[in-house]
Amino acid sequence: MSKGILITLEGPEGAGKTTILHQILPILTQMGVDILTTREPGGIRIAENIREIILAPENTAIDGKTELLLFAAARRQHLNEKVRPALAEGKIVIIDRFIDSSVAYQGYARGIDVADVETINNFATDGLLPDLTLYFDVDTEIGLSRVMSGDREVNRLDLEAQEMHQKVRAGYQAIAKANPKRIVTIDASQAIDQVVAATLSTLQIRFPEIFDGHF
Amino acid sequence: MSKGILITLEGPEGAGKTTILHQILPILTQMGVDILTTREPGGIRIAENIREIILAPENTAIDGKTELLLFAAARRQHLNEKVRPALAEGKIVIIDRFIDSSVAYQGYARGIDVADVETINNFATDGLLPDLTLYFDVDTEIGLSRVMSGDREVNRLDLEAQEMHQKVRAGYQAIAKANPKRIVTIDASQAIDQVVAATLSTLQIRFPEIFDGHF
Repeated sequence: MSKGILITLEGPEGAGKTTILHQILPILTQMGVDILTTREPGGIRIAENIREIILAPENTAIDGKTELLLFAAARRQHLNEKVRPALAEGKIVIIDRFIDSSVAYQGYARGIDVADVETINNFATDGLLPDLTLYFDVDTEIGLSRVMSGDREVNRLDLEAQEMHQKVRAGYQAIAKANPKRIVTIDASQAIDQVVAATLSTLQIRFPEIFDGHF
Repeated sequence: MSKGILITLEGPEGAGKTTILHQILPILTQMGVDILTTREPGGIRIAENIREIILAPENTAIDGKTELLLFAAARRQHLNEKVRPALAEGKIVIIDRFIDSSVAYQGYARGIDVADVETINNFATDGLLPDLTLYFDVDTEIGLSRVMSGDREVNRLDLEAQEMHQKVRAGYQAIAKANPKRIVTIDASQAIDQVVAATLSTLQIRFPEIFDGHF
């Protein structure tokens, strides 16, 4: 049984992860690459149930640490039931958000000790790391303008969103700096076509076997 | 605001924790002690929701680590919403099962690294430790005979239960040995009246202020 390749996509809001994935997926599929794209909770029933608890608007009493534990539990089930089996079949698995999202959002942005977040991540994944992580780095103004309706005046919530976005971005930049072999930073402030081109060329350099049709 | 006292009850199946609690509760209440007895998930809605996921019979795919993360999340919410506020009011809080149950069951009995279980516990509780833990140590045959209907022949599941009980008990004994200041072992193989008497006298020795009515 061949061993697949695990690739994760990371970045703050408005980095364009989903759009980019939609554009590169048909290109890779046309090349005959056996690919699974997924995101947590990924249709895994237990993980979906856990997500419902996290996202239920009436559950305002959930604090950051409880949230992290619940995300970790959902992550583990998604990994066990969907990702690991696909990797065991030799597939290329692309996950939209993985361990680094917890470090950036719950750690750097929400203030939980980053070492603790890493410990919980590591426990939940049995230490599984992506073969490659693409970090889509985007300027805060550009990122937020992509997710907000553009024409209205900036209000208090927007300012909070801006501060949050900056913290998340600074977190991701620190993570990327600390993991130079695993994480490639892609400038996602560019036009989307350029970001897609940069993504494909990064994949080609890192995994030439995919592009030679020998995978 | 006075600071309350946190007491936890631990022990394997059939140790008689619940029975003992029912017997000592009216005695303490009659003495005017302001007491809250609880057990996870303790009526906390989020924790109840998490419990439902863990216990749903169709969720057979949940492994030990996911279970531990979910228990930890439920524990944290129970602590934040119910236990800590009562302690802040100066109450004596008695919890039926707490951190040591995870170490004994998920750690020693189910084989998750004990140091990992302790790390997750510590993260979930912010390092809060009970002022006193009563460990009710019971002989495996006596413990199981208390929870099983007594007259039938021993079957395969009973033998599995026996092996599990022994592992849990050995785990508790190791935990008690490692935490001699926090944990008092009470011989729960004795008749229930004797166990109740031993429990009350342990509380009296450890917290004389409760029994003097000065709490």
